[in-house]
Amino acid sequence: MPREPQQDRSRETRERLLAAALSTLTEQGLAATTVSGVAQRAGVSRGAAQHHFPTRDTLIEATIDEFFAERTHQLRNAVAELRPGAEGASVTEILELVFGFFSNDLFHAAVQVWAGAAADDALKAVILPAEERYSREVYQLAALALNADLSDRQTRRMLSMTLDIARGLGLASVLIEDPDHRNSVIRTWGETLTEGIRRNR
Amino acid sequence: MPREPQQDRSRETRERLLAAALSTLTEQGLAATTVSGVAQRAGVSRGAAQHHFPTRDTLIEATIDEFFAERTHQLRNAVAELRPGAEGASVTEILELVFGFFSNDLFHAAVQVWAGAAADDALKAVILPAEERYSREVYQLAALALNADLSDRQTRRMLSMTLDIARGLGLASVLIEDPDHRNSVIRTWGETLTEGIRRNR
Repeated sequence: MPREPQQDRSRETRERLLAAALSTLTEQGLAATTVSGVAQRAGVSRGAAQHHFPTRDTLIEATIDEFFAERTHQLRNAVAELRPGAEGASVTEILELVFGFFSNDLFHAAVQVWAGAAADDALKAVILPAEERYSREVYQLAALALNADLSDRQTRRMLSMTLDIARGLGLASVLIEDPDHRNSVIRTWGETLTEGIRRNR
Repeated sequence: MPREPQQDRSRETRERLLAAALSTLTEQGLAATTVSGVAQRAGVSRGAAQHHFPTRDTLIEATIDEFFAERTHQLRNAVAELRPGAEGASVTEILELVFGFFSNDLFHAAVQVWAGAAADDALKAVILPAEERYSREVYQLAALALNADLSDRQTRRMLSMTLDIARGLGLASVLIEDPDHRNSVIRTWGETLTEGIRRNR
């Protein structure tokens, strides 16, 4: 049975609102992410926006959901594209990928969300488990791509530190991009990882 | 000649306003840092607050100045207390110190400022050189305390990466403190640094 055209339109409106909310969040921060501002940006009437998101809280919650869904989606696409061979992808390749996840627009939106959550316990309670899930996925992706032997404690520690480094580089990138520094870190940490982690044969 | 009591009172009011502004910034973010909100928190009349800070921009600028002055002050006190011996302080000691600078209240305020600056080019222009100066000071402190040989490129890279790791740990600490993870990073990175950097005799 074909879907009702009206249902399609309603879904399309919701998607436009969420896309506008995500852009507002990234560019202007959480405080600027309001139903009326987002409606205007999406070119949707305020009434139609309120039909989907009756309160600001429902909009924020849906935006955060959308945000994590989009980040996870990008992550899984990246895994699919890596197609690790018998020896795994190169360390440099993996570091570029992982550091990339922590310096794109979605990461910049994450910094806005974290800054907002620091002063908002209800938001923090939503964000924290979602962030932990996301970090675990990045960790697993890196381990898989490197054929890392996760039974080795030192290997686990170094993979986990890779995420700390990625977050640090990403935070600095909120103010300014510094590709030279980033490449220098990829080289330095890449050498350390290559020597330090144990790989499955 | 003794100072005028009125001058003292005026200076004291300004200091109370700045302290309140810094607390508001840390706890509630940049958007919440307004002249009237800060006046209320400081227990100062709105008129008196506007005498010191006629606009919100002047308040934000003074708060940012105060913020960097306070961070630099803490840094220099820490250097004075380290009193490096002939061999320099232990790597663990230095890492605890440096990571501490990036996970205290002042760093959490910095994350709020960065998030705000991402959407505000005028603010970014103020913050960027101040952040670079601050990072350079932390870097120099770590080099001094470790007796690091900065003529060695690998040593410079590893010291610089120490700041990236500190920022990454600090960003995660905005949502949740994880002392076990932090200690594990201090151990892992401490071993890498100990092996990897060259020290002056």
